[in-house]
Amino acid sequence: MSSRIHHPGLRSKVMSAAEAAAFIQHGTTVGMSGFTGSGYPKAVPTALAERAKELHARGEAFRINLHTGASTSAEMDGALAEADAVALRTPFQSDPTMRAKINAGAIEYIDTHLSHLAQSVWNGFYGPMTTAVIEVSGIREDGRLVPSSSVGNNKSWIDLADQVILEVNSWQSEDLEGLHDVYYGTALPPHRTPIMLTHPADRIGETYLRCDPAKVVAVVETHAPDRNSAFKPADADSIAIAQHLVEFFEHEVAQGRYDERLLPLQSGVGNIANAVMSELVKSRFTGLSAFTEVVQDGMLDALDSGTLATASATAFSLSTEAAERFNDNAAKYRDKLILRTQEISNHPELVRRLGILAMNGMLEADLYGNVNSTHLMGTKMMNGLGGSGDFARNAFTSFFLTPSTAKGGDISCIVPMVSHVDHTEHDVHVVVTEQGLADLRGLSPKQRARTIIDTCAHPDYREQLRDYFDRAMRESDGLHTPHLLGEALSWHQRFLETGTMRQG
Amino acid sequence: MSSRIHHPGLRSKVMSAAEAAAFIQHGTTVGMSGFTGSGYPKAVPTALAERAKELHARGEAFRINLHTGASTSAEMDGALAEADAVALRTPFQSDPTMRAKINAGAIEYIDTHLSHLAQSVWNGFYGPMTTAVIEVSGIREDGRLVPSSSVGNNKSWIDLADQVILEVNSWQSEDLEGLHDVYYGTALPPHRTPIMLTHPADRIGETYLRCDPAKVVAVVETHAPDRNSAFKPADADSIAIAQHLVEFFEHEVAQGRYDERLLPLQSGVGNIANAVMSELVKSRFTGLSAFTEVVQDGMLDALDSGTLATASATAFSLSTEAAERFNDNAAKYRDKLILRTQEISNHPELVRRLGILAMNGMLEADLYGNVNSTHLMGTKMMNGLGGSGDFARNAFTSFFLTPSTAKGGDISCIVPMVSHVDHTEHDVHVVVTEQGLADLRGLSPKQRARTIIDTCAHPDYREQLRDYFDRAMRESDGLHTPHLLGEALSWHQRFLETGTMRQG
Repeated sequence: MSSRIHHPGLRSKVMSAAEAAAFIQHGTTVGMSGFTGSGYPKAVPTALAERAKELHARGEAFRINLHTGASTSAEMDGALAEADAVALRTPFQSDPTMRAKINAGAIEYIDTHLSHLAQSVWNGFYGPMTTAVIEVSGIREDGRLVPSSSVGNNKSWIDLADQVILEVNSWQSEDLEGLHDVYYGTALPPHRTPIMLTHPADRIGETYLRCDPAKVVAVVETHAPDRNSAFKPADADSIAIAQHLVEFFEHEVAQGRYDERLLPLQSGVGNIANAVMSELVKSRFTGLSAFTEVVQDGMLDALDSGTLATASATAFSLSTEAAERFNDNAAKYRDKLILRTQEISNHPELVRRLGILAMNGMLEADLYGNVNSTHLMGTKMMNGLGGSGDFARNAFTSFFLTPSTAKGGDISCIVPMVSHVDHTEHDVHVVVTEQGLADLRGLSPKQRARTIIDTCAHPDYREQLRDYFDRAMRESDGLHTPHLLGEALSWHQRFLETGTMRQG
Repeated sequence: MSSRIHHPGLRSKVMSAAEAAAFIQHGTTVGMSGFTGSGYPKAVPTALAERAKELHARGEAFRINLHTGASTSAEMDGALAEADAVALRTPFQSDPTMRAKINAGAIEYIDTHLSHLAQSVWNGFYGPMTTAVIEVSGIREDGRLVPSSSVGNNKSWIDLADQVILEVNSWQSEDLEGLHDVYYGTALPPHRTPIMLTHPADRIGETYLRCDPAKVVAVVETHAPDRNSAFKPADADSIAIAQHLVEFFEHEVAQGRYDERLLPLQSGVGNIANAVMSELVKSRFTGLSAFTEVVQDGMLDALDSGTLATASATAFSLSTEAAERFNDNAAKYRDKLILRTQEISNHPELVRRLGILAMNGMLEADLYGNVNSTHLMGTKMMNGLGGSGDFARNAFTSFFLTPSTAKGGDISCIVPMVSHVDHTEHDVHVVVTEQGLADLRGLSPKQRARTIIDTCAHPDYREQLRDYFDRAMRESDGLHTPHLLGEALSWHQRFLETGTMRQG
């Protein structure tokens, strides 16, 4: 019996994943742990997918509504999607099978701000939450739970669910204990009070998750790694984008707009975010802070080097190598690293107060600074909005980052009009590609267009963009935001028809 | 000499508007008071327009960059635009002459969240502010200023400007004194602290505007009303929209999602907002609160009836009749009404904490719940975003309201794809037209589309919308957000070409 389960009553509820999965019924809503492939349940979802397949084979319906923190993994989202066991999915996913079924219209997906989901479920318009399935790294004698490698919405799911299934994963470092800060001060209005956090390093909550042992129907033991993949070195585009950013930070410090220690950094997930951290480590900056969603490899390096003094997030998303490094040294990071609920890591009040420098990836931006983060050619969901809106909407400076082209140059990531808007011109301050950085603050739409074309667009598409803009300046109905409506989305249509946005 | 100017040094600076206007130089940035046609300077802008015309006649350049709180009036925005005296305008306008020049490309306009402008100017990327021109209703012996009928950005403009020109308007009620709450606790990050306001009635600031008398270069006396126009009774569409809303409030209370006293109300400007207040006055609701931008006629009625217990805003926007009523009874309203800076009235931290029910007008919504508040046929600026984004982005429930058609039925305000996005699908919870109310919370994109068509679209356009959606379901590249890219903006193009969105 695992030494991680110290509560006698809960020790008596240890069972197999298949037995635990039998507690989950068709048509119910299930809240699971998991955020950017960390801290998701490793065994029960797979068992649930098996159960769904068996029921389907017998002609019985079995589909659940599934809420998480954010993305999980192939053995969870992939297995459940493959088994047709999901009717509705929120708030974020990145699994190829899940994505394909969403885009085929077989799974309903609601793409919502990560900080909003908990309040929406509390508010009741997703219906009652029947079951929570939560990975933890241990259970204390008093029944309190030691969180795992992500906190996400776990606090809310445990509080809201009628029944709780716990997975205790002994792969997670025991030294995670003490790293977390679970805030129990949220409420629905009119009962909300100020959140008294004024620095990313502030601790305002509790170390453990509270959980009424009477609600726990099953405990499943696992020993399985998070969705970690091998570290990929940064590519040239990511490095160029990161260098433009660091140069801009220098410029803003020189202008007296940013502090010598900058302002708390938020950076999205992926290669570019890692490259930004690498370039910062190489720079003269030191003692910085991060108030962000996810701790990636680059952030561990920056903590090691002293570039980052502190990092607050809701989850890890590490390579296999970095996960091992973290697990071996978790105690060392405990003073510098805090994992919070995603309500707090992404909270509008805190994002605004702290003055976050919000750096997020995107699929495309248009001439006027509108940004599409989610929809391929306007209709297909890539992953989801994630926390980009939580941060960009209330950030001190919001940066959106992408290589200037995709698909080997056949897609220009700077287009006349984006095919879907996740971040409006009002909330996009800086656009960065490997070509350069466009500071849109204080620019009118037409000034923005000229700046974006000259600075961010790939040379192969600059003339095509200038031609569109020049003709729009002559033929547009209005000249505040010049457009040719019949042609504004033609680049996307051309890609669908011919495989390239290039004009023939 | 006016009895409103009690500071001897400032009394000695009284001069004509023309003399005061001579302090403003070409190419400089000027911050003026004014918000929804109230509290703007009545004399200096007109004199400045005259000065610009004289200089232009002599072949000299004269244009300023103009920041305000929000909209002003014909004698300010109209006169300055007509005289070609404005190079850049932010953050909001509603004057026909100003609008026409913006849409002709003659004036650069930056449409920004009203709560954001002050921090942007403080942050320095609009360049230095040379002059502030601020209407007040009186000057105290110690030099502090009694604000006028709007507070807007006046605190920031006075603090930021090198020189200050004051207009003392004796038309404004002397009883305004004590109504205002000017918060001096804002800062740029990393120096921000929690704003300790937990109820719309809380006072957290000072009654007066601070102003170093040494910065005041001119004081101009005026006696002139705000931009008040005659009260227009609500039309049938506005009443129907308001009734749908009140019915929805009842439903949410019954579901336990809203308190009996609802949650603090924000409502935009115009007929629909007035109608909402009228319907609330007729309803059983009582003791409500408003945390909003603007106090309109309907809100005075609701304060009189007890429907509203308290209203917090940054400005008045009253009809001639209501302005007289308010001026005659200002002392009576002082306990129930608070005017704050627009940084605070629209502050993300407070909007989120209080759990605002944000009700804003719009030009059009699309099938998936994206909203266009600003751009006519995608290219022409109407007025601006105003505070709609400040509220909607962080609201507890965000409502967007419009009649289902415009231009005598030739424009459908529900379209396949909006021609400009000011509020994304992620931030739009409820869409209301006179036809009905679509509650989009917890719905996937396709579910939203069916709900909006069935509930909100005008019957004349329903089949046309269904046809688009059905064909998109068959032919779209992806089925998460089905679209026909070649046709998505064709309704707007058809209107430009034929004068109607109706299919031939």
